[in-house]
Amino acid sequence: MTVGSPGPAAPTDSAVAALRPLADMNLHEAGFLGRWQRVNVETTIPRCVDNLYTAGSINNLRSVRDRSIELTPPRFSDSDLYKTLEACGWAAGTTYQAKINGFLDEALDLLRAVQEPDGYLNSWMQRGDRTRFADLSHGHEMYCAGHLIQAGIAYARATGDRRLLEIGAKFADLLYSVFAPDGHAGVPGHPEIETALVELYRATGEQRYLTLAGLFVDRRGHRTLDTSVTPSEYFQDHLPLRENRHIVGHAVRATYLAAGATDVAVETGDTELLAAMQALWTDMVETKMYPSGGIGARPHGEAFGDAYELPPDQAYAETCAAIASFMWSWRLLLATGDGRYAEVMERTLYNGIACSISRSGAEFFYVNPLQLRSREFRAAGTQGTRVPWFGCACCPPNVARLVASLGSYLATGDAESVQLHLYAAGSLRVGDSIGLVVRTGYPADGAVHITVTEGAAEWTLSLRIPQWSTAARITVNGTEVRAGRNELGYAVVRRRWQVGDTVSVEFDLEPRVVRPDKRVDAARGCATVERGPLLYCLEEIDQPAGVFEDLRLDPAGPIVPVPAHPDLVEGTVALRLGGSRAGVPVELTAIPYHQWANRGDAAMRAWIPISEESL
Amino acid sequence: MTVGSPGPAAPTDSAVAALRPLADMNLHEAGFLGRWQRVNVETTIPRCVDNLYTAGSINNLRSVRDRSIELTPPRFSDSDLYKTLEACGWAAGTTYQAKINGFLDEALDLLRAVQEPDGYLNSWMQRGDRTRFADLSHGHEMYCAGHLIQAGIAYARATGDRRLLEIGAKFADLLYSVFAPDGHAGVPGHPEIETALVELYRATGEQRYLTLAGLFVDRRGHRTLDTSVTPSEYFQDHLPLRENRHIVGHAVRATYLAAGATDVAVETGDTELLAAMQALWTDMVETKMYPSGGIGARPHGEAFGDAYELPPDQAYAETCAAIASFMWSWRLLLATGDGRYAEVMERTLYNGIACSISRSGAEFFYVNPLQLRSREFRAAGTQGTRVPWFGCACCPPNVARLVASLGSYLATGDAESVQLHLYAAGSLRVGDSIGLVVRTGYPADGAVHITVTEGAAEWTLSLRIPQWSTAARITVNGTEVRAGRNELGYAVVRRRWQVGDTVSVEFDLEPRVVRPDKRVDAARGCATVERGPLLYCLEEIDQPAGVFEDLRLDPAGPIVPVPAHPDLVEGTVALRLGGSRAGVPVELTAIPYHQWANRGDAAMRAWIPISEESL
Repeated sequence: MTVGSPGPAAPTDSAVAALRPLADMNLHEAGFLGRWQRVNVETTIPRCVDNLYTAGSINNLRSVRDRSIELTPPRFSDSDLYKTLEACGWAAGTTYQAKINGFLDEALDLLRAVQEPDGYLNSWMQRGDRTRFADLSHGHEMYCAGHLIQAGIAYARATGDRRLLEIGAKFADLLYSVFAPDGHAGVPGHPEIETALVELYRATGEQRYLTLAGLFVDRRGHRTLDTSVTPSEYFQDHLPLRENRHIVGHAVRATYLAAGATDVAVETGDTELLAAMQALWTDMVETKMYPSGGIGARPHGEAFGDAYELPPDQAYAETCAAIASFMWSWRLLLATGDGRYAEVMERTLYNGIACSISRSGAEFFYVNPLQLRSREFRAAGTQGTRVPWFGCACCPPNVARLVASLGSYLATGDAESVQLHLYAAGSLRVGDSIGLVVRTGYPADGAVHITVTEGAAEWTLSLRIPQWSTAARITVNGTEVRAGRNELGYAVVRRRWQVGDTVSVEFDLEPRVVRPDKRVDAARGCATVERGPLLYCLEEIDQPAGVFEDLRLDPAGPIVPVPAHPDLVEGTVALRLGGSRAGVPVELTAIPYHQWANRGDAAMRAWIPISEESL
Repeated sequence: MTVGSPGPAAPTDSAVAALRPLADMNLHEAGFLGRWQRVNVETTIPRCVDNLYTAGSINNLRSVRDRSIELTPPRFSDSDLYKTLEACGWAAGTTYQAKINGFLDEALDLLRAVQEPDGYLNSWMQRGDRTRFADLSHGHEMYCAGHLIQAGIAYARATGDRRLLEIGAKFADLLYSVFAPDGHAGVPGHPEIETALVELYRATGEQRYLTLAGLFVDRRGHRTLDTSVTPSEYFQDHLPLRENRHIVGHAVRATYLAAGATDVAVETGDTELLAAMQALWTDMVETKMYPSGGIGARPHGEAFGDAYELPPDQAYAETCAAIASFMWSWRLLLATGDGRYAEVMERTLYNGIACSISRSGAEFFYVNPLQLRSREFRAAGTQGTRVPWFGCACCPPNVARLVASLGSYLATGDAESVQLHLYAAGSLRVGDSIGLVVRTGYPADGAVHITVTEGAAEWTLSLRIPQWSTAARITVNGTEVRAGRNELGYAVVRRRWQVGDTVSVEFDLEPRVVRPDKRVDAARGCATVERGPLLYCLEEIDQPAGVFEDLRLDPAGPIVPVPAHPDLVEGTVALRLGGSRAGVPVELTAIPYHQWANRGDAAMRAWIPISEESL
């Protein structure tokens, strides 16, 4: 990645933002996130690219100029290409991209051939001879355009190559000419274009893109979208966004929209809109989020449910929704500097997003339940394994683009300060003056060592202390410093640093038995087991023989960390727990939730029923 | 109703059946079921008839001969007419039918005009110029044909008018010619024809109808139905019925099929098939049934879920599924004489079916949850009231046909014995020799008085003693008799009866706090409150001010029956319960679950969280 260029979501200097994104952090593959990023580039992204050819995305675009090729659903298959390109773009800044070099040039040739002279580009509409922008509710034209723009942003920021961005900008210019002030007052059925337009404004300095993003945010909520198939709430079109205090409807739509509105708010200094987004986020986190960070409880409409409606077995918790939530939280973190947004990012990343992908990086979950019953109790036809691909393949390339850009989401800073939000082994540079190397086995291990490699000067290092940590110890060159968690959730160390100085944080990873909010009906009488940022679960394969469904956790029993089963990711910590079955004591074994279903079809519980005596 | 003619499901003399259905019981409108039957004929059936004209059923049939009329979905709209006609048919045997007389002649004219010379009759296929039987998976031709036949059966049995039956039999003859042995080996995507064909065999004596029903049962389960939209399990086409021990898939399909297979089993003496149906029923009742008797937990696919997957808030529990389950249980009761089938019929009728209809009889629920959160917690757009009609209107006419025929489901008997399965005020005759009058305020009141009006002879009276009853007292002419519950669940009184003899049963209606099976995850830490056969619930409107979601039941507290709110059905008993909110004692009020949502948009809980101290 070009030194000094930020990753996704880069507020301008004039934005109302507490924090400034950094250059990408170069993740070391010995670490959890570095390993994931390596698997992503070696396996996941190539798999995404392969599927673009076999599942129809490439052919749909080719079909626009070669009518002998049939169009295949879904109508938004172009977006799979764009998300994969975005992943390739961010990955181009890493060291693992060999396998996917060359794909950009091929894609550019194809897209240039398909794009109309006025900038329009959408295979479903062009090949299908459909009228542009005639079905904003379901057409997904602007959804695809948004992903095209974001892919261009990735290449531009990561490599300086702006060729793809030019294609997206040309389409954006067309959108402005159609939907600009005094133009067509419609809004897209599936948000995504909003955040892309703000990013395009950031990458080009062209005010009109920000203006258009703001129009899409403010025009929404007036029930203009088609309600013959789904109600206005599905589209977040039932109330103006700045008046709405309850997050509802399709979870991916809701959170992409909120991310875009947050971008608009910080760039326009719209503090009312920002406050509305913060309130909406709080509603989501406090009443509609699983302990995995997953959101969108209902399969029907892929939607948020009622407050506290969080069934573990029929959880939808779509992978894409968790990713969108992560992206939204990052934007609110940048806007406010408040560590609670980073806290939710961490929970979501290590649990609700990480669980969607197999250890190998080649299989995926679209929905991410917190419970799957034993085979003998399970309705016939229900599988308990990830699959190689989906008919609606939005999730795999979404994971790919996120993981490729993960290094951008961990830290912020400027010449005077560095903030570490998420901990991962790697090295980072802040502007021209500060360099740091982070060594850690986090989240399996609680020790984080940060060594100054450049920046012999006085500046401030802020370290996020997660809410679950009650006894973190911080030392500088071996000497303990008293630096408590401030109101934003950070320990702040300011001093005149020398190259070679090492700050160490020792997080207390004592496993915790966590009782859910009493209003969560589906988790009554249950608890989660957590360690650091990781949610744990019971997999049937690890438990003593007998009926898995009848296991109970003794919440007051000892919890002993032990090495995990060798088929799990190396270094994984399992937990031995006290439990019972029909009143008879048994020893239970929990593994990190994100690693479930890596050993064949699995029964699993993350909310574990606790023994009646303990209730 | 013609004296001596049975109601729905009438095994022949040669059938392997423990019990013989009776002439219809004439329900007194002072009683709960009699009142319901009056409302059904005065309001529900006329509303169904009206909607046949306004919602498209009649017009779809007319459109076959008048192409200026457009066809409107759903494709099975003919079945709404047939179910309504069936309701009218059964109602013709009651005293409330004035409003709906004449409708049969109108319908006969229409159907005769539409039916093809070879017997085919289906507006969706005929008007749509679709190929007959080309889409057995989704076409619903035989589903509609089954309901046509059942409507004909109703008129024939209730009034002796066989004109409608002739139309159905003509279609059945066509079906036999197409699907007979050595013919087309397909099966219908939506079962219903199976039970109708057996009933047609019973009504006509024509063996071929029974043969065809048996073929449809045995040909199923070989994965011949289309799996491009739904898996084989949805259609119960994944395993031969006699091999399957776990009820899965679309709940209405599963239970209509099972009812038809049970009919085939008793008429053919197929004890293996009957045993398989009993095992399947037990799986349903023990692992996949709500305390309301509702079945089919999952909205997706309107399907049974896993064993013990019974979410109260997102419960589907379709009205039609509860009705189909009731009909299936009746067939197993006739086959075996085992009172546990009557027990489930009673639970289902008074709770899972009765809840689907408003007090006025004019509004309906399609899905029947056991919990609805307060408005302030509820996702925007979710209503908590019944509605006047549905786009897919299968449920209202299904309720109508069941309620019109309710008198047929209460008792069985012959010249030697009478069995009372469900208790309702009314009078019945058994054959030529026995007459009884039942006086009772059941289920609100536990006293049932049965007076012999004819039948001065020695014969046996069997009275079902529900499992919830632990202290029922039986007297004959005021003298207590010792007659315990036998292994089939009945108290048996045999004596030489005199006209005027009165048997009284006093059921103990002590309210009960019932803890769910420990494997029902969604009900952990909750209990139901029940009284007699009635499930109770908390409605927010009856509780002290404060957050409804935070109420807790004290399961050990006193429960006091009190008169219910005057806007509920007259004579309803409410219950005062001990409870708490945030540890502070409060008094709770429960009403019968089937009467919820009769006082405006309502929050409700049937599974009530119990106080932590009581767990």
